Amino acid sequence: MKVKISRRATFNAAHRLHNKNWSEEKNKLFFGKCNNPHYHGHNYTLIVSVLGDINEDSGYVIDISYLKKIIEDKIIDYLDHKNLNLEVVEFQELNPTLENIIKVIYDKLRKELSNEFTLSIILYETENNFAEINETV
Amino acid sequence: MKVKISRRATFNAAHRLHNKNWSEEKNKLFFGKCNNPHYHGHNYTLIVSVLGDINEDSGYVIDISYLKKIIEDKIIDYLDHKNLNLEVVEFQELNPTLENIIKVIYDKLRKELSNEFTLSIILYETENNFAEINETV
Amino acid sequence: MKVKISRRATFNAAHRLHNKNWSEEKNKLFFGKCNNPHYHGHNYTLIVSVLGDINEDSGYVIDISYLKKIIEDKIIDYLDHKNLNLEVVEFQELNPTLENIIKVIYDKLRKELSNEFTLSIILYETENNFAEINETV
Amino acid sequence: MKVKISRRATFNAAHRLHNKNWSEEKNKLFFGKCNNPHYHGHNYTLIVSVLGDINEDSGYVIDISYLKKIIEDKIIDYLDHKNLNLEVVEFQELNPTLENIIKVIYDKLRKELSNEFTLSIILYETENNFAEINETV
Amino acid sequence: MKVKISRRATFNAAHRLHNKNWSEEKNKLFFGKCNNPHYHGHNYTLIVSVLGDINEDSGYVIDISYLKKIIEDKIIDYLDHKNLNLEVVEFQELNPTLENIIKVIYDKLRKELSNEFTLSIILYETENNFAEINETV
Amino acid sequence: MKVKISRRATFNAAHRLHNKNWSEEKNKLFFGKCNNPHYHGHNYTLIVSVLGDINEDSGYVIDISYLKKIIEDKIIDYLDHKNLNLEVVEFQELNPTLENIIKVIYDKLRKELSNEFTLSIILYETENNFAEINETV
Repeated sequence: MKVKISRRATFNAAHRLHNKNWSEEKNKLFFGKCNNPHYHGHNYTLIVSVLGDINEDSGYVIDISYLKKIIEDKIIDYLDHKNLNLEVVEFQELNPTLENIIKVIYDKLRKELSNEFTLSIILYETENNFAEINETV
Repeated sequence: MKVKISRRATFNAAHRLHNKNWSEEKNKLFFGKCNNPHYHGHNYTLIVSVLGDINEDSGYVIDISYLKKIIEDKIIDYLDHKNLNLEVVEFQELNPTLENIIKVIYDKLRKELSNEFTLSIILYETENNFAEINETV
Repeated sequence: MKVKISRRATFNAAHRLHNKNWSEEKNKLFFGKCNNPHYHGHNYTLIVSVLGDINEDSGYVIDISYLKKIIEDKIIDYLDHKNLNLEVVEFQELNPTLENIIKVIYDKLRKELSNEFTLSIILYETENNFAEINETV
Repeated sequence: MKVKISRRATFNAAHRLHNKNWSEEKNKLFFGKCNNPHYHGHNYTLIVSVLGDINEDSGYVIDISYLKKIIEDKIIDYLDHKNLNLEVVEFQELNPTLENIIKVIYDKLRKELSNEFTLSIILYETENNFAEINETV
Repeated sequence: MKVKISRRATFNAAHRLHNKNWSEEKNKLFFGKCNNPHYHGHNYTLIVSVLGDINEDSGYVIDISYLKKIIEDKIIDYLDHKNLNLEVVEFQELNPTLENIIKVIYDKLRKELSNEFTLSIILYETENNFAEINETV
Repeated sequence: MKVKISRRATFNAAHRLHNKNWSEEKNKLFFGKCNNPHYHGHNYTLIVSVLGDINEDSGYVIDISYLKKIIEDKIIDYLDHKNLNLEVVEFQELNPTLENIIKVIYDKLRKELSNEFTLSIILYETENNFAEINETV
């Protein structure tokens, strides 16, 4: 029986939705107020979940302080209090939609975690809008 | 890698649990205070999730304002501030349990969304009681 | 230094907003969808707070299990799974607005609690709409 | 007995903390990562509360749809998806700290509401940091 | 189409993380402040979910009051206000990590529920740390 | 116009309710399962609020990172992952009820904060039970 262990963290960032290959008009029409050239921002809430077997010695699937440290070092320090469009290298070409932000976070976390773990992550942009990537689906 | 996008919405409704084919006594015994003939009510919280591929141009799996509009037009406008037993056609014959309400919502949303999307929905009746339909299970 | 002790509880009820002295048209215009003659409903969340001195022996301002019991006996049992307009005597003449519901609750609780305590109560009708009565204001 | 009626709303905005009369060094030292020149952002949650007497006819202290409309027209439309430093006239000279943002919101709402009402507002910048202005204190 | 029905409950308990086969030094190094010999405690939140078919007569997958009763009788009464290490037989030899606690809860609930139901449970130790066991994964 | 600034923090602790001057029987009868000699525990959530004037230069009532540091140094480090009865000097003679815990926290914070600030604190023991000390009441 596998157990999934989850850790919640938060960060705050500014962004705008914008496709550099589209005209200003098309961007404004398609992304609406999210295209505001002066940026807007969010409190993002991130949940990182690791599915694996319980180690008989420690009683842990993963040491949650180790998971917490990876999230802080690789995601929170990298994105918190940042302008995603201007300051984060992945979004120089990529539009920082909720979908693309969670994909960037997933790719960074996947590299840090052993393949013995199945990874899933949830990212809330607001209390009403959120996204999930789940390796078991 | 597929991404799941979720949107939260709320509505308020009155209902009573009642099987028209059962006697009053059996209804009262089985459904308890939920069978009160004068109705009671809830703040329902609905989460609609759509799993699909990220469109490379828009950076979206689905335009969440479009998803929001479908939820408002097909579900919230249809159920909000209503008496489910008296005013909603599906519940003329069907007992409005949490299970049947989420099934009615699922059927309505399924018709509105392309089959390229995998759909899942969660419906909270109270903070302690909730239901889920998930096409991936 | 006085300490305020609070207890949270919930109940579910149906109601409609309606002033019996107004015409149907005026009621519908003024109260909108909340005037639906077939009723709608809510999950109400109630917070009851008692301000007083700490008893040196018990270390309590009030025994919170006693406060819990009063809330259950006098409010939850009285209002839960009820139709406020049809089944609660206070609302035979009084329109069950959020303001009038909290006033009815306050009057019932005030009788149960010693005057050495200052009472305040909060009542949530939804996550966005709530009311408060506070004897210290 | 007066009753306080509250309405919750949310908006998302970008900002940076910066005092134009201070050097870049002093700003950076004092405001830390909140001084990031490229901005960061938040989901702000606003609670507006109005204390007054219950009107005997309507059963309302204030029509909460009217209160909702004032909040949307004067605050949400004015601040949502905006860069507070660049796009909001009050913050051209005023540093958009949580304290100054709530003060600007208070001043705008105070003008819209009759003096028969006592006003209080709460503004959450994150789940851990929030501010309140309350005319009764 | 199967529907998943969920019920939330809470309990409070004390525990310490400790492997009896390790030295005091290794326990302290590995489990940190969670190894405190005088114990610490948590408010645990448990969500129990049952996936099955809707019964056509009742409109239920499972009677949620029956599910509530099982949770109260088998889990809450067994763990609430207890010291897990000293008072719960399963943790006499087993380290009460979040993973092992959820496994003990799962084993107890699995025995009570028919195999026609697929079971999944979530256990929150804090708002930031939680675990899940899901038979469908 | 004064502004109140609030900061939220959490800690986990074990305790039992017990009056050393009472017999075992009286303790058990009065405090019920909270008197369990093996202890139980909680996730406590603390909100510390400081009311004062906005400083014109900084735009702050108080630097919230300074407030956060005081809370961490004086309260969280002092109480987190502790057994309140066995390890905290104030509760050697004082029964660690919610009322007495919030009083101990208040006394420690009051010493750290200038008298130009009005202090109020809220302490949640569970989602249903909480306490407040407020200098303005």
